[in-house]
Amino acid sequence: MSISPPAFHDIDPPQRLLMGPGPANAHPRVLRAMSAQLLGQFDPEFTEYMNETMALYRYVFQTRNQWTFLIDGTARSAIEASLVSLLAPGDDAVIVNAGRFGHLLIEIAERCGATIHTVEGEWGTVVPYERIAEAVARIKPRVLATVFGDTSTTMAQPIAGLGELCKAHGTYLYVDATATLSGMAIPVDEWGADIVTAGLQKCLGGPAGVAPITISDRAAAYIFSRRHVERGLLTAETAAGAGQRIASNYFDLAMLMDYWSDKRLNHHTEGTTLLYGARECARLVAEETLERRIARHQQASDAMVSGLKAMGLRLFGDPAHKMTNVCAIYIPEGLDGERVRTRMRVQFGIEIGTAFGPLRGKVWRIGSMGYNCSQPNVLHVLGAFEAALRAEGVKLPSGAGVDAALHAYAKA
Amino acid sequence: MSISPPAFHDIDPPQRLLMGPGPANAHPRVLRAMSAQLLGQFDPEFTEYMNETMALYRYVFQTRNQWTFLIDGTARSAIEASLVSLLAPGDDAVIVNAGRFGHLLIEIAERCGATIHTVEGEWGTVVPYERIAEAVARIKPRVLATVFGDTSTTMAQPIAGLGELCKAHGTYLYVDATATLSGMAIPVDEWGADIVTAGLQKCLGGPAGVAPITISDRAAAYIFSRRHVERGLLTAETAAGAGQRIASNYFDLAMLMDYWSDKRLNHHTEGTTLLYGARECARLVAEETLERRIARHQQASDAMVSGLKAMGLRLFGDPAHKMTNVCAIYIPEGLDGERVRTRMRVQFGIEIGTAFGPLRGKVWRIGSMGYNCSQPNVLHVLGAFEAALRAEGVKLPSGAGVDAALHAYAKA
Repeated sequence: MSISPPAFHDIDPPQRLLMGPGPANAHPRVLRAMSAQLLGQFDPEFTEYMNETMALYRYVFQTRNQWTFLIDGTARSAIEASLVSLLAPGDDAVIVNAGRFGHLLIEIAERCGATIHTVEGEWGTVVPYERIAEAVARIKPRVLATVFGDTSTTMAQPIAGLGELCKAHGTYLYVDATATLSGMAIPVDEWGADIVTAGLQKCLGGPAGVAPITISDRAAAYIFSRRHVERGLLTAETAAGAGQRIASNYFDLAMLMDYWSDKRLNHHTEGTTLLYGARECARLVAEETLERRIARHQQASDAMVSGLKAMGLRLFGDPAHKMTNVCAIYIPEGLDGERVRTRMRVQFGIEIGTAFGPLRGKVWRIGSMGYNCSQPNVLHVLGAFEAALRAEGVKLPSGAGVDAALHAYAKA
Repeated sequence: MSISPPAFHDIDPPQRLLMGPGPANAHPRVLRAMSAQLLGQFDPEFTEYMNETMALYRYVFQTRNQWTFLIDGTARSAIEASLVSLLAPGDDAVIVNAGRFGHLLIEIAERCGATIHTVEGEWGTVVPYERIAEAVARIKPRVLATVFGDTSTTMAQPIAGLGELCKAHGTYLYVDATATLSGMAIPVDEWGADIVTAGLQKCLGGPAGVAPITISDRAAAYIFSRRHVERGLLTAETAAGAGQRIASNYFDLAMLMDYWSDKRLNHHTEGTTLLYGARECARLVAEETLERRIARHQQASDAMVSGLKAMGLRLFGDPAHKMTNVCAIYIPEGLDGERVRTRMRVQFGIEIGTAFGPLRGKVWRIGSMGYNCSQPNVLHVLGAFEAALRAEGVKLPSGAGVDAALHAYAKA
């Protein structure tokens, strides 16, 4: 062997509180669940875990959709699976674009060969329903795609009404809820959304690497019409559809639904460890209940906003539509935002977020998500942030941030 | 909330020895590594873990390729990333097809819009070099793709010579080593392979969900010529190439190389937990050394073959090209193979494999891979298999399988 083996030490990450826009720290129960030994993917004990995971995510997504399961990849992979399974080359897609992750939807839909029509919004705002409705009525696209909770701007685009709008025009509604699932209400059936996807590493308190998805029967029927089963697996039960073949094998939702059905038609080898983790994330949601979990994120957000304002800082974006798990804070004039972030990380062991695109160097992003969404962590980050800013020469009222947050929690 | 929370018990998989064609059991050190807490993906401690993982897999792949990293998905996702990043619609691809996973390469390349030319082999054989060379010389394809170690047939297609052949015709050589990496020699640089991919759940002793990949400089240069950076991330350093844009965002290897480079250009949120696991898998290989690990798989294979033959069973496929981590065994005439598999699972706690396509109902597959590749496990599966067959009415010489395997190990 011409290449010698390198020697590296054991995994031993520093103790770090992740209070940026995600990932957040994983719940210890999720880490423990992932240390369980593997099973074969068609073992009855494992397929039972798959079915339980489906049932749990039906609760998390508040849906009766049969097709509620996991994509084996990060949150972005589930976005691509959704769009590539719905969009064929030449199809029209209307995309709500008011942040980095709106851009991502455009980027992915373009690669599907779709004709893109955007409804643009300023970063830090949401797009009014009327403008979306006008575009959908005019274009009658195959897909309307929007982000619910774009961490780049901290805005949560309102979804109510979009489901009905889409049904009226033969359009499928895709919602990217990567950053908000279980932290804000995602009532999939009430919204009438056709596909909603998420990630574990935000409000669900797990690691990136597997992505929950839910698909309406209407969208599933359309996707099955594009079904194209692998050679050697074709049977009467899994007959090919008449529609244009989906341009990806890995992200072919028709094949994935067959795999997650009782047919168990072989596709990839399911990622056992992350399935265990995703199941535990959802069990934690079910035990806490969505009501309490959503309220916990709202309280933390209220306390964080109170604290940051009491420190004399200014928040970016429309407060009426702010996500409840992340804040964007203007970097005071003349201050080097990256020096503050480094100080937070090195001296306090806390990660806070930088920003993308037009907001780069203009705002920090501080989140409080999932397992990390708690009174102690909110108080801890505010206290550390005050000290870090003071160390960088910012004049601040001593203790005001923590006191205001304590006060907000006391009122809650 | 209209959907009530379901209640399921803690993850508690049954004790199960996975001796099929994969997944195999994960090494306990890998499971422990994955229980470490998360880090932010751009934290210096985490990017250091990424760099260490790259260095470790350069050893495992025996390559100096800078671009040696992980795809966040199962083994199949890395196949698709390779083919979609090399193949544009209308490109020619020559595919060596002598098993289920040859079919998969065809299936994925077709969805890339490539024109497919297959070099076909009977299941249970490998394809002679001359036939591949003839096709490549005639077609001068963009890509020659082959599996090295197709678990559906247990055959390992010889790769030697294909690298030179491809270079002579302006072709990129893709090798799917999902089932063999670290169990058989995969000398990437010596082969002159352009892209080789694998999975953790076979010889590497980890879970499915993340997939090692290595890319030659020559292939990387070609892929960068198709680079198309996401809006808002474009800079002089990451200028777009002139080539046709890659049809997937998630699997765009140009973007993934930028992410795994010092530029750390944002793409997906790296799956921290599986990166920890993949790093630990490769550390275990480095500590054992590839020489010893490959010899361990060879010895287990020799012992397993001796044992099965001593039991009077017949093996499927060309013994000269059998993979060293899995055997295919003809199901004796009149026997219900699935009843034997169920007995093995329920009574002995051991999983052995069924088969696909033309071999379905004709052979079982028994593997001995990674952490599960050991003398005790080989002896254990042979003893249990004998008892299960006898219980199903097969006449067998008592203890002959285990004795023959013990004898083979004593000679090794």
